[in-house]
Amino acid sequence: MELKKAVGLKAAEYIKSGMIVGLGTGSTAYYFVEEIGRRVKEEGLEVTGVTTSIRTKEQALSLGIPLKNIDDVTHVDITVDGADEISTDFHGIKGGGGAHLIEKIVASNSKEIIWIVDDSKMVDKLGAFPLPLEVIKYGSQQVFNHLEEKGYKPAFRMDEAGGKYLTDEDNYIIDLHLGTIENPTALEAELNQMVGVVEHGLFLNMVTRVLVGSADGVQDIAIGRQYYSEGK
Amino acid sequence: MELKKAVGLKAAEYIKSGMIVGLGTGSTAYYFVEEIGRRVKEEGLEVTGVTTSIRTKEQALSLGIPLKNIDDVTHVDITVDGADEISTDFHGIKGGGGAHLIEKIVASNSKEIIWIVDDSKMVDKLGAFPLPLEVIKYGSQQVFNHLEEKGYKPAFRMDEAGGKYLTDEDNYIIDLHLGTIENPTALEAELNQMVGVVEHGLFLNMVTRVLVGSADGVQDIAIGRQYYSEGK
Repeated sequence: MELKKAVGLKAAEYIKSGMIVGLGTGSTAYYFVEEIGRRVKEEGLEVTGVTTSIRTKEQALSLGIPLKNIDDVTHVDITVDGADEISTDFHGIKGGGGAHLIEKIVASNSKEIIWIVDDSKMVDKLGAFPLPLEVIKYGSQQVFNHLEEKGYKPAFRMDEAGGKYLTDEDNYIIDLHLGTIENPTALEAELNQMVGVVEHGLFLNMVTRVLVGSADGVQDIAIGRQYYSEGK
Repeated sequence: MELKKAVGLKAAEYIKSGMIVGLGTGSTAYYFVEEIGRRVKEEGLEVTGVTTSIRTKEQALSLGIPLKNIDDVTHVDITVDGADEISTDFHGIKGGGGAHLIEKIVASNSKEIIWIVDDSKMVDKLGAFPLPLEVIKYGSQQVFNHLEEKGYKPAFRMDEAGGKYLTDEDNYIIDLHLGTIENPTALEAELNQMVGVVEHGLFLNMVTRVLVGSADGVQDIAIGRQYYSEGK
């Protein structure tokens, strides 16, 4: 809890008045959004938020953060979000919170992407965390069977009532229990072409800065790359 | 009209009792579905239909064709559907009717795929027909801008009331006016990885038989390939 809060506060330092800010989803991004709300209220910070889920939208509205739809801005200056796993080459798995589709849409329109995590999320290779796929309901059992035949150990994500979990976009989620992902780029290409899969939780070559909270403090790692381009 | 009916009737000849049949969507597939309905009623044909759209489902139900969800069958034996363009190497564009997402889901689980068209749909290269993309609403304007920057001449599909057309899955459609698609495989890879694009209307290496109606009759072309495999 304290580590998540520490990185959330640290990330908020990158946010300046005038910025369009992508607001991530999840238990770590929560603290970042709270801090932005506090600065809006107490310090007169002037930002426009772009949210990545219904629950972040509700949180931001309750804090009085002005919001716009991703389609009503030209771009996002910085998106701050959590991640479920980050590898040593700074690829990530997201979607444990079920919001990776919209998170990826916002991230793909962001000039800077900051991931905030505690040090338990830093891994040698991705894959111990289940990789989420958002899938169209119709045909989802066929997609599941197909993934099972491939040995990807799929499981439909369930909700608390015992039904299949529904995303904000009214799709299902299938989590893949891969153990280790030896070649994320190849897996991404395979999942991208899979009919019925709307979006997967692999975020490759996207993040530009990682803040890692540990008992020793917050490590701030700038990644030397630029995902976003005007004419991408 | 007569050409569409002729290929619809011809395709129905491939359907035998005991089969699970994918029922396509559109003005040509319409005649195929009508003929299957007639044979069910008059000849006692016993098939199970798997539909590709709400309107085909309504048509099939009105004809008394027994239906199952794609997720309640092990596979589809034959899917018969129209196409908006077919190139000389038997790639296709589908989605003029707005149903290409579900059509592709059903097709990708079909052992045989028959496309039925009149000869106006046969082209040297794909692209004169606008290529449909089904896109998530949230971020769709960003996807549009991105496509415009690439020179793909996108246009949101509109409905009769002047609003954005909604698919059965509650997404938007953006049509690309490409003129000529020189490299469908490269374009497919590009569209597959585009965030916010659920599915595009390029159907490459999928069809196994094409029935072409012309003033001279119906040409029956078996394509020497197999898209479907048990462990694909």
